[in-house]
Amino acid sequence: MTESMHASASPGQYALSPIVAGVWRLADWTWSAAERLTWIEGCLDLGVTSFDHADIYGGYRVEELFGEALALSPSVRERMQLVSKCGIRLRHPARPAHRIKHYDSSALHIIASAEESLRLLGTDYLDVLLLHRPDPLMDADEVARAFDELRASGKVRYFGVSNFTPAQFDLLQSRTPLVTNQIELHPLHRAPLTDGTLDHCQRRRIRPMIWSPLAGGKLFTSEDVAARRVRGMLQQIAATHGVSAATIAFAWLLRHPSRPIPVAGSGRLEAMREAVAALSVRLDAQEWTEINTAGTGMDVA
Amino acid sequence: MTESMHASASPGQYALSPIVAGVWRLADWTWSAAERLTWIEGCLDLGVTSFDHADIYGGYRVEELFGEALALSPSVRERMQLVSKCGIRLRHPARPAHRIKHYDSSALHIIASAEESLRLLGTDYLDVLLLHRPDPLMDADEVARAFDELRASGKVRYFGVSNFTPAQFDLLQSRTPLVTNQIELHPLHRAPLTDGTLDHCQRRRIRPMIWSPLAGGKLFTSEDVAARRVRGMLQQIAATHGVSAATIAFAWLLRHPSRPIPVAGSGRLEAMREAVAALSVRLDAQEWTEINTAGTGMDVA
Amino acid sequence: MTESMHASASPGQYALSPIVAGVWRLADWTWSAAERLTWIEGCLDLGVTSFDHADIYGGYRVEELFGEALALSPSVRERMQLVSKCGIRLRHPARPAHRIKHYDSSALHIIASAEESLRLLGTDYLDVLLLHRPDPLMDADEVARAFDELRASGKVRYFGVSNFTPAQFDLLQSRTPLVTNQIELHPLHRAPLTDGTLDHCQRRRIRPMIWSPLAGGKLFTSEDVAARRVRGMLQQIAATHGVSAATIAFAWLLRHPSRPIPVAGSGRLEAMREAVAALSVRLDAQEWTEINTAGTGMDVA
Repeated sequence: MTESMHASASPGQYALSPIVAGVWRLADWTWSAAERLTWIEGCLDLGVTSFDHADIYGGYRVEELFGEALALSPSVRERMQLVSKCGIRLRHPARPAHRIKHYDSSALHIIASAEESLRLLGTDYLDVLLLHRPDPLMDADEVARAFDELRASGKVRYFGVSNFTPAQFDLLQSRTPLVTNQIELHPLHRAPLTDGTLDHCQRRRIRPMIWSPLAGGKLFTSEDVAARRVRGMLQQIAATHGVSAATIAFAWLLRHPSRPIPVAGSGRLEAMREAVAALSVRLDAQEWTEINTAGTGMDVA
Repeated sequence: MTESMHASASPGQYALSPIVAGVWRLADWTWSAAERLTWIEGCLDLGVTSFDHADIYGGYRVEELFGEALALSPSVRERMQLVSKCGIRLRHPARPAHRIKHYDSSALHIIASAEESLRLLGTDYLDVLLLHRPDPLMDADEVARAFDELRASGKVRYFGVSNFTPAQFDLLQSRTPLVTNQIELHPLHRAPLTDGTLDHCQRRRIRPMIWSPLAGGKLFTSEDVAARRVRGMLQQIAATHGVSAATIAFAWLLRHPSRPIPVAGSGRLEAMREAVAALSVRLDAQEWTEINTAGTGMDVA
Repeated sequence: MTESMHASASPGQYALSPIVAGVWRLADWTWSAAERLTWIEGCLDLGVTSFDHADIYGGYRVEELFGEALALSPSVRERMQLVSKCGIRLRHPARPAHRIKHYDSSALHIIASAEESLRLLGTDYLDVLLLHRPDPLMDADEVARAFDELRASGKVRYFGVSNFTPAQFDLLQSRTPLVTNQIELHPLHRAPLTDGTLDHCQRRRIRPMIWSPLAGGKLFTSEDVAARRVRGMLQQIAATHGVSAATIAFAWLLRHPSRPIPVAGSGRLEAMREAVAALSVRLDAQEWTEINTAGTGMDVA
């Protein structure tokens, strides 16, 4: 692990680790708090110091489970960055007032959700808070007021969005500074490569975070024809590099000039290690294209 | 009707009433000039002080019919704002030179069309002139010259467009100031919510005007499955608010943070009153989403 | 031929001739060097002083064939502008290292490709170098460095792109100045008229170059229903102007306010003359629309 693997912990400068740990499924792993802490410390030891949350993960339960683990060893908080999200309201027994799944980007909800994330995680601040989905009713001035208030109070250091189009990003960015757009990208979902999303990130020097870097596992399990083609190519290239196919899948993402930050969401530390290993692999343009072309099923134009 | 319902009549400041009266079908109503004046005055009394025209409405006849009514009571002109449009050339007996329906955004046509609108309406100025449709042959510098000339001569105070994409708007806006983009939006046509059109309006603080706020009546008459779903939801929410379903359809539009200005086009003053009533209804995010989801047929992501 | 037909040869000012000669198929014409020179001089005499190359044309052979002709009469170089392209790597016997057709916008490749173009063409400079296709892996800072180096050394005077979306163009333009985007446009491929590409060109006052102005010949040979409709309309309008249908096809392009520069790629000087003749034809809006509508099969909205 190189020096550059370590994210700055300075509050004055935004930085995430080059691979982020996603805790989407943490509740599913049915671990004790001690087991959770072991996994967290394992990630930290790998240089994966940033953890990606959302208020709604695990049916509103993951932040609390993570917070219980942190409480066992409070000093680990200083070695990590915490990202969370808000803005989706699920139909869920824990939220009986919700008649329908909907978005809420009101200042009231953003601030209340961020404060609840702090309480559940047992921390004083989030490093980054993201709006989880583009809300057609997003009032950019109101969101900016909420972000400014959370920033001024020290409760959240940086802000971003997730799943935003360039137009949606530019709207909110026109009112308040944003540091990232967390989007889906993998060889079976390449739209951001051509629809302007990654052009926009690169132009504004905004590093995208990447969710579902392995297509939620489908890269290695789906029998879909495109998935099989991609998998075969990943395996072939993996063999020439002497690494795993998963490592090559992460290397494919890391090769993009927008400098993506993949969110790896496995409870197996070995899988996290395979993600980190990609930082030492640089695919050449032919290898990258072979994987891309396996995804599209067509030669380049 | 509140103070804020009244649009400023000051020539130095652009403002339309929050609900605009559309006169698209005025010729179809087959009214006498006195009946037209009664309707106009009824709108004004409701706070609907802006009237939305186009040169082509009613087969090039509506502006003249409206002008005849105005001539019966010239002082009403000072209580209203007149919007008109130009740029479409219809195949029509009144325009024998037109071999084919086409667009014309030449300076010559824009100026001639605006001057003809003034003559037919019997007024010295238009408050707002819109380019009716994006013309692939629009020369933005030439349109800007035409607008500048009309503005300098006092014949038109403000300019806008209709049915423009953000790219088309930005092109023309780069040459001359625009105050609005009049677009179609209703629960059965929601593309502007996600294709960047309304993001662009909000970002530039351009209030969109909305044509077909009730889908040209289809919201209440179509037996299409989506229309039936939307109608059922509008009725259900209307019952809880003690207003009409049409009022809720307007409230759905007014809820958007880009602050849309719906164009209501009914000859029944009661229908205009239902539109105005929406100014006193604020839908919450769940109600708004229930209507939106009835339109899409899918839960939010 | 009018004065305005002549492009400026001054190195300080970017200008191409209003019709550009495309040499895509030069190798297919199986001419002697002397025959190639005769064609080149014929183009120059018509005012077609710009020649559009790419490293890959003719399987990496066209630049050399053109250079052989130039070598027979070196002074013609001063009367012409040379455009070339780079960034595509073909699978080809001449490039055995290429396992797969792919893009390469690395600084190393751009500079090496431009230098090879100079060597094959037997010239000291290119007037314009274009990136041939949008490369998902394009690092805009790296491309800008390559362009700056080529500009500083005098090897290339101006830079542009081809087949770029507005988002891709804006990304690269944010790092280095671009003078054109060479795109496909003809009555059977009208997407750039509405997808923002030409709005973007006009807004930034970037004159697009147009490849396939005659749909690669399909306008006059395809039995596709849209092609037949367009062909019939071109012939009808051609008759009223007393020119050829091909001339009208070029006039249709030239009518656009973004001031397109068509690339005409015929070995027959008579065909080049038909393209040049379009500079003296101005279609009116109805004629332009009749051709456009023949392409779409639908009336305008």
